[in-house]
Amino acid sequence: MTSIGIFGAAGRMGRAIAQIVQEAGLKIAGGTDRDGEGEIAPGVPITADPLALAQRSDVLIDFSVPAALSAHLDACIAAKKPVLIGTTGLEPAHHALIDEAAKRIPLLQTGNTSLGVNLMAALVEQAATRLGDDWDIEIVEMHHRHKVDAPSGTALLLGEAAARGRGIALADHSERGRDGITGARARGAIGFAALRGGSVAGDHQVIFAADGERIEIGHRAESRIIFARGAVKGAQWLIGQPVGRYDMKGVLGL
Amino acid sequence: MTSIGIFGAAGRMGRAIAQIVQEAGLKIAGGTDRDGEGEIAPGVPITADPLALAQRSDVLIDFSVPAALSAHLDACIAAKKPVLIGTTGLEPAHHALIDEAAKRIPLLQTGNTSLGVNLMAALVEQAATRLGDDWDIEIVEMHHRHKVDAPSGTALLLGEAAARGRGIALADHSERGRDGITGARARGAIGFAALRGGSVAGDHQVIFAADGERIEIGHRAESRIIFARGAVKGAQWLIGQPVGRYDMKGVLGL
Amino acid sequence: MTSIGIFGAAGRMGRAIAQIVQEAGLKIAGGTDRDGEGEIAPGVPITADPLALAQRSDVLIDFSVPAALSAHLDACIAAKKPVLIGTTGLEPAHHALIDEAAKRIPLLQTGNTSLGVNLMAALVEQAATRLGDDWDIEIVEMHHRHKVDAPSGTALLLGEAAARGRGIALADHSERGRDGITGARARGAIGFAALRGGSVAGDHQVIFAADGERIEIGHRAESRIIFARGAVKGAQWLIGQPVGRYDMKGVLGL
Amino acid sequence: MTSIGIFGAAGRMGRAIAQIVQEAGLKIAGGTDRDGEGEIAPGVPITADPLALAQRSDVLIDFSVPAALSAHLDACIAAKKPVLIGTTGLEPAHHALIDEAAKRIPLLQTGNTSLGVNLMAALVEQAATRLGDDWDIEIVEMHHRHKVDAPSGTALLLGEAAARGRGIALADHSERGRDGITGARARGAIGFAALRGGSVAGDHQVIFAADGERIEIGHRAESRIIFARGAVKGAQWLIGQPVGRYDMKGVLGL
Repeated sequence: MTSIGIFGAAGRMGRAIAQIVQEAGLKIAGGTDRDGEGEIAPGVPITADPLALAQRSDVLIDFSVPAALSAHLDACIAAKKPVLIGTTGLEPAHHALIDEAAKRIPLLQTGNTSLGVNLMAALVEQAATRLGDDWDIEIVEMHHRHKVDAPSGTALLLGEAAARGRGIALADHSERGRDGITGARARGAIGFAALRGGSVAGDHQVIFAADGERIEIGHRAESRIIFARGAVKGAQWLIGQPVGRYDMKGVLGL
Repeated sequence: MTSIGIFGAAGRMGRAIAQIVQEAGLKIAGGTDRDGEGEIAPGVPITADPLALAQRSDVLIDFSVPAALSAHLDACIAAKKPVLIGTTGLEPAHHALIDEAAKRIPLLQTGNTSLGVNLMAALVEQAATRLGDDWDIEIVEMHHRHKVDAPSGTALLLGEAAARGRGIALADHSERGRDGITGARARGAIGFAALRGGSVAGDHQVIFAADGERIEIGHRAESRIIFARGAVKGAQWLIGQPVGRYDMKGVLGL
Repeated sequence: MTSIGIFGAAGRMGRAIAQIVQEAGLKIAGGTDRDGEGEIAPGVPITADPLALAQRSDVLIDFSVPAALSAHLDACIAAKKPVLIGTTGLEPAHHALIDEAAKRIPLLQTGNTSLGVNLMAALVEQAATRLGDDWDIEIVEMHHRHKVDAPSGTALLLGEAAARGRGIALADHSERGRDGITGARARGAIGFAALRGGSVAGDHQVIFAADGERIEIGHRAESRIIFARGAVKGAQWLIGQPVGRYDMKGVLGL
Repeated sequence: MTSIGIFGAAGRMGRAIAQIVQEAGLKIAGGTDRDGEGEIAPGVPITADPLALAQRSDVLIDFSVPAALSAHLDACIAAKKPVLIGTTGLEPAHHALIDEAAKRIPLLQTGNTSLGVNLMAALVEQAATRLGDDWDIEIVEMHHRHKVDAPSGTALLLGEAAARGRGIALADHSERGRDGITGARARGAIGFAALRGGSVAGDHQVIFAADGERIEIGHRAESRIIFARGAVKGAQWLIGQPVGRYDMKGVLGL
C-alpha cells in the first residue's frame, strides 16, 4: 500500500491531506512539523525529523512554509523519494532550489493542486488559441468576505493561460477594476472582476464574448478539501515518474 | 383601438416602439421628429407638430431628447393626453417640468422601461429588507464592448433598490472597482463589478451571500426591443389613470 | 443567555444544531435521543427524558423522527415551552397533533429551515403574482449523485410558491421530465428539471422567461449546516411569540 | 474580392447569410431557390440555375433542403467549386452523395455552423478525456417555447463529444427526463435536461461534477445570426483547401 509522508502536518492543509489519505485507503507514513508534537492520525505521531519521515515514505507532500523548503528537499534527496510541493509564497530563490532538487528526484511543484482548476486552465488556453481577438475575454471570480486581495491568484493563473493561448503578455493587456468613464473596451484586452461575500470557497469563470454568442468556462469549489484531494492524486502519480520537475498537467495527462 | 403617438419617431427607440405597437395590434397615431421627414410606418408620415400629434393620440410615448421635453409636455397638456417619458439624460430642471405637468395630466417617467428590470428591482429591495447585513450584497453586470461607462445605470438602480431595502445611503456603502490589496470586505458594503464584451444587450445579477448560502437575482436582456415593449405596456396602463406622476411600479401593480 | 434543548440530539442534524448553538454563543440546555447515550457537547450528556429537557430549556428544536413527535409535543406543553419542528416525513396525523399543540404553545413547523430558501420562495411568489403567463416559469435544481428522487422537495416548494402567485394549482400545470417529441410548451406550464452529480448540497433556480428577457431567482447551499443555522434563528425568534402555529415566514418578517 | 454563391437564397438562413456576406465586405455572387424569383440583395436576382451560380462563385453555401442536394453537388462538381453544406435533415443516402462529391471538390458538411458551439464540443471532449468517471457529466439546455423536441440536437452533439472523450457509447449511458423515484445516479451516466421558455435562441451547459468541485462549460447564442456568421467563415476557409470532406473543426484549427 502506498505510504505518504506529510511535511507541515500540523497545519490546516496537512490535516486535510491526512484525512484524504485515509479516505483513499492509503497509508500515512507520518508527519513532521516545527514543534514535532501531537498526532496526525490515531497512533501516528508528528515528529520534527524530515529525513526519518522521507525514509519510511513512498512519496512526500509539502504544504508547510518556504523557510522549511530547503531542509525538506534535502531529506527527500537523501532518501531518494519523490515530493509534491504545494507550499505558497515561494520566491525565486526557492524555485532555484526546486530546480536543483528536480535533477535528482521526481518533483511536482504547483500553486494550485485542484485537478478541476488545472484542467480549466488547459481548456481556457485552448479556447484562446483557437478564437481570434474578436472574442473578448473576461474573468470573474467570487471568494469569501475575508479575502484581502483581488483578483485571486487562480484568476491570474487563468489570465496567464488565456494570454499564453493568444500569444500575448498578460501584463500588457489586463483591464482591472473597471469603474467610471472607461471608454470602449480595448481590443485584445483581458478583463478581471472580483466579487466578495459570504463563505464562498472559490468560484471562477472565464467568458469569451463575440458578436452574438458567448462561451463560458467555469469552476466552482465547494470547500478547500479539493486541494488536499488533488495533492494526494498528484503524489500517487509522481511515484514512478522519471527524475525531473513537473506540474499538475502531467497528472491530467496534458 | 388604442392609438399611440410617438415623439422622437426617427430615432432607434422610436422605430422599435412603432414595430411593437403594430405587433401588439394597436394603432400608430403618428410620429414627430426634429426634421419632420420620412415615414414611421407605411403611409404614416413623421411630422414636426407635437400638438397635432397629441390631439389625435390616446397616449404619447417620448424617447427623444431632453431639449424637446418642454414642447412635448406642452402639447400633451394642451390636448389633455397622458404621456410616458423614457428620454434619458434628464437634469433636475427637466424633472421640475415633469412635476408641473403631472399636476395636469397622467405622466409616467422612468429611466428603464423593461418590466423585468423593474420587477427585479422590487425583488432586490424586498430581499434587502428581509436579510440582515450578515448577507453581503454584490452586483455584477455585463454589457457589449462599446459601452463607455461602468457600472451600468441599471446596476446603480439595483444598488439603490438594495440600499433602500436596508435603509442606508448607497453612496456611503459602495465598493467599486476592486483591485489589488483591498483588505477584507466591509460589513454592509454593496459591491459592483462590470464585465464588457461581445454584443451583450445587458445582463445583471444581484448576489446576497451569507455563511453557507447565496441568493442570486438576475435579469438577462436578449435585445433592446424589450424596452420598447415595456414602454408600450406602460403607455396602455397609463390611459385611464388619474392625473399624477407615476413610474413602472404601477404597471407591475407594485 | 438563551438555552436551547435538542430532541434527536444524536442524529446528523442534532449534532449540527449543537455546533451552531455554541458558535452563536448560546447555551445547549441538553439533548435527548432514543438510546439516551453519549454527549451532545463536552459535559452535556444525551438523555432519554424529554420532559426534563423541556423544563430546563427556553426553547426546543426537534429534528428527530415522526414516531417521537407526540412525546416531544407532550413534554413541551407540560413545560409550557415553545418548539420548532423540522422533522421530515410527517403524515396528516402528525400535522393534526401539531395543530392541537399550537393551541397551547408557540410552535414553528417547516419542511425547510434555510432562511435563504424561504426568502427565495417569497420572491418567486411575488414575481409570479406580478408577471402574466406570457412569462414561462422553469425550475431547475442540482443535487449530489446519491439523491434518489426528482425533483427535490425544495423545487416542489418553489413550484407551489409560483403556482400560488399565479392563482393556479401546481398539479394541473407541471411539466416534468421533458424528453423526446414534447410539442411546443403549454402556456402557463411550470417546468421542472433535475440535475444530479458530485457532492452538490443543493442549487435551485427559478427562471421566468418572456419574449426577449429573463428573470432568474436562485439559491445555492454550500453545505447542510445552513439548515441548522436557520433552525437556531427560528428557535430564537419563537421565544416570546404568542401561542400559535408558525412557519419560517415569520422569522423573515414576511 | 471573394464571391459567395447562396443555394436556398429565399429561406431564412439564406437571407441571413446574404446579410453577413455584405457586412463582411465580401461579394454575393448570386442565389438560387426553387421558384427562382425575387432578389437576394439590391440588384442581385435569385435564379433557379445552380450551375450558372456555381460558375460565377468562388465558393457556395447550401442551407436549402435535402431534396435539392444532388443537383447542388452536381453544379459544384461541374464548376469545380468548393461548397459548405449546412442543410439539416440529411439521410444516409445524402451522406453517401456527399462522400462521393468530396472526392472531387473541397466540401464542408456540418449540423451546426456556430464557431462557438464547435469549439465548446472540442473542449467538452478534451475534459471528458482527462477526467475519470468520478466526474459526473450533466448537460442542460434552454430554448424558446416553440421548440417541439428535447433534448436539442446541439445537446446531443455535446453528449456525443463527451462520450467520445470517455470512450463510451452515448446510447448506453444517457439519463434523460429524470422524474420521480430515480434511484441514485448511475456511475458513468451522461444526464440531459431541457428547459423551455420565452424566446431563448439557445443556451447549452455541460457540467462535470466531482466530490467538492464542478467544471462548467457553456455556450449562449443571442440570435440565429451566429449560424450565418460561422457559415461564411467556414466558406472562406474552404477556398484553397485540398479536395476532401471537412467539418467545422478545420475552421477552428482543431
